[in-house]
Amino acid sequence: MNRTGIITLLTDFGLSDPYVAMMKGVILSISPDSRVVDITHDIRTGSIIQGAGVIQETYGFFPEGTIHLAVVDPGVGSKRRHIAVKADGHFFVGPDNGIFWPVIEMNEDAVIVDLNREEYFLSHITSTFHGRDVFAPVSAHLSTGKDLLEMGSVIEDPVRLDMPVPSKRTDYLYGQIMRVDHFGNLITNIRRDVLEEFLGQYDPVISVGNLEIKKLENIYSDADKGYPLALINSADMLEIAVNLGRASEYLNLNSGEEVGTMVKVGRYR
Amino acid sequence: MNRTGIITLLTDFGLSDPYVAMMKGVILSISPDSRVVDITHDIRTGSIIQGAGVIQETYGFFPEGTIHLAVVDPGVGSKRRHIAVKADGHFFVGPDNGIFWPVIEMNEDAVIVDLNREEYFLSHITSTFHGRDVFAPVSAHLSTGKDLLEMGSVIEDPVRLDMPVPSKRTDYLYGQIMRVDHFGNLITNIRRDVLEEFLGQYDPVISVGNLEIKKLENIYSDADKGYPLALINSADMLEIAVNLGRASEYLNLNSGEEVGTMVKVGRYR
Amino acid sequence: MNRTGIITLLTDFGLSDPYVAMMKGVILSISPDSRVVDITHDIRTGSIIQGAGVIQETYGFFPEGTIHLAVVDPGVGSKRRHIAVKADGHFFVGPDNGIFWPVIEMNEDAVIVDLNREEYFLSHITSTFHGRDVFAPVSAHLSTGKDLLEMGSVIEDPVRLDMPVPSKRTDYLYGQIMRVDHFGNLITNIRRDVLEEFLGQYDPVISVGNLEIKKLENIYSDADKGYPLALINSADMLEIAVNLGRASEYLNLNSGEEVGTMVKVGRYR
Repeated sequence: MNRTGIITLLTDFGLSDPYVAMMKGVILSISPDSRVVDITHDIRTGSIIQGAGVIQETYGFFPEGTIHLAVVDPGVGSKRRHIAVKADGHFFVGPDNGIFWPVIEMNEDAVIVDLNREEYFLSHITSTFHGRDVFAPVSAHLSTGKDLLEMGSVIEDPVRLDMPVPSKRTDYLYGQIMRVDHFGNLITNIRRDVLEEFLGQYDPVISVGNLEIKKLENIYSDADKGYPLALINSADMLEIAVNLGRASEYLNLNSGEEVGTMVKVGRYR
Repeated sequence: MNRTGIITLLTDFGLSDPYVAMMKGVILSISPDSRVVDITHDIRTGSIIQGAGVIQETYGFFPEGTIHLAVVDPGVGSKRRHIAVKADGHFFVGPDNGIFWPVIEMNEDAVIVDLNREEYFLSHITSTFHGRDVFAPVSAHLSTGKDLLEMGSVIEDPVRLDMPVPSKRTDYLYGQIMRVDHFGNLITNIRRDVLEEFLGQYDPVISVGNLEIKKLENIYSDADKGYPLALINSADMLEIAVNLGRASEYLNLNSGEEVGTMVKVGRYR
Repeated sequence: MNRTGIITLLTDFGLSDPYVAMMKGVILSISPDSRVVDITHDIRTGSIIQGAGVIQETYGFFPEGTIHLAVVDPGVGSKRRHIAVKADGHFFVGPDNGIFWPVIEMNEDAVIVDLNREEYFLSHITSTFHGRDVFAPVSAHLSTGKDLLEMGSVIEDPVRLDMPVPSKRTDYLYGQIMRVDHFGNLITNIRRDVLEEFLGQYDPVISVGNLEIKKLENIYSDADKGYPLALINSADMLEIAVNLGRASEYLNLNSGEEVGTMVKVGRYR
């Protein structure tokens, strides 16, 4: 597999501490020509599910041969394995805690390696910062062209992740809000194809909290200023928004509790 | 025009979502040697005026041949055009909503192109994320040396933007606060030359809210700790600050309402 | 000394204004092949001590020959000198206000240069933004291989910084909290070696506010979910944390007042 020299980073570290910069320093020390691109460092603390969702949604926009380093790792230092995954033309490096499960599940020929060769780590491994001491050096070595299979042993039993999926019960499709974005848009786990199959010839009735929306719009400004709407977003997911406003505030949900809120879709003709 | 391979990004997307990273992935897929530099992703949601001001203030510090991609785009998906501008040795790519108007207005020989050649976009265009699907690929193609004139048709009627400008009435100069920066400094729209022409031989009396300042200082520490001052800042604009403090808190303006507040300048001998 | 072309940035500028981007534009204009890496721009406003601590903790993870540009500069425009330091294989560029003192103190052969050669600055120097007008161009010139000794005069009297150090009184070791990180972890100024020498054969009794911890753990998940713990962190400092929680909230300290809080260590067998 060709290597682009691009390494993406996704963590829940934030940017106010030097943790991300230390990882970049380690990477550049080993692989001076690599280019590091931040995906985000604002994953909700310890939320493997959110991290897994963002990786799945994002990696395909990078060229094949990119290495995606992800650290959302509440169990750092415990006996969980370090893994690297080769799938769909990309590499993924991080803890074996399910964060790469959606990628593995979608790619039957994914190769998963238990990173047990310590010569690819920093010489001194702390017990609380494997992002810097293990995953950054492994990613850097991969970017220089090192063979993944030399960096550990192939495994077949990676940790799985239960991602919440929509369910159909009687005449309704039940999903949930997965993420509130910077604009206050509520991003659900209902994919376009699932919704279309459920609706068939019918129109939707989308309920979230006290809000009921009976139509799918194409763009935000199809609704009047300050009015709520639903659309299929740029990641092909059902999204609840307010034109020139914040759906997260429009709905009377308690702040910070939007994630996990039920989204119920009915149908009418 | 030479190309530096540098592409700057300015958006109101924030950094907690993967939207900016998706744009970078698209850019690197098309133009692997380009280098992307963030200007800021914290433009106030939908504030074309703030975005336009920051671009105007910033682009000249980059080398000629740089491409400036800007997405503050509340009308995404509507019929507004996509444009690219060549002006003052730089390129600008984004929505035709006025965000580049200050640059166009200052450069009589600016060339403006309606980006209507879809072969320079991603193959699948969503209706809600033109930053990723249109502006990122166009910018990337430009950075590889593609001719701007092949990417669309020259237009003469770009959307204009009413930037608030200072006005002189009777014996006073009236401006307003355009931006509160990270330090709580209040940045006005009164340029050094406008102020100097107004003042002539006189000294200023600067009024904002209940505050009156009768002098221009050179540096923040010319005022005592915790005291307010006015100075001409590094962008040549009149700025109200508090030494080792926050002017935005010192003034009894409601938080978030500073922008737009009137700044009145009188003169005395 | 070889040059890697890497320039790191540390400031208290935040990322919502274009100030950091302007510095990057200036750097790339002078040194097109340099690569700029952000350490952090969220140093507490004006906190030279916090900036100095983060630099000391971080620089060693970058390759030798890296240039570290740091601007925490409440006295910008006053008569304080501009300096560059060569120490431990790295360069450091910024104001002479003590921010590099910990690096200088640790490296007896550090060379310190008063940057008094204006041909290495921007042609127009403002009095309020030396990060852009002085330190960015100097760093860029250094990265192209310019000799540090040609950029100014060697000095022997850099401004020193009083970093708070732990003290031993009667049977106790007294330190303090230096930083609250993104996870709410409380990072003290007590180094592993200082603690180990103090404890000898004894076990610790660590007191912060009302909290008493009688044990050092190895990893966060050694404590039950929501319970406090102490450990030696990845920077070899004593740290107070809460497993899957925030120590900064667990302790009944007023928000924002954690920094400076006393940490007292006793011992028992």
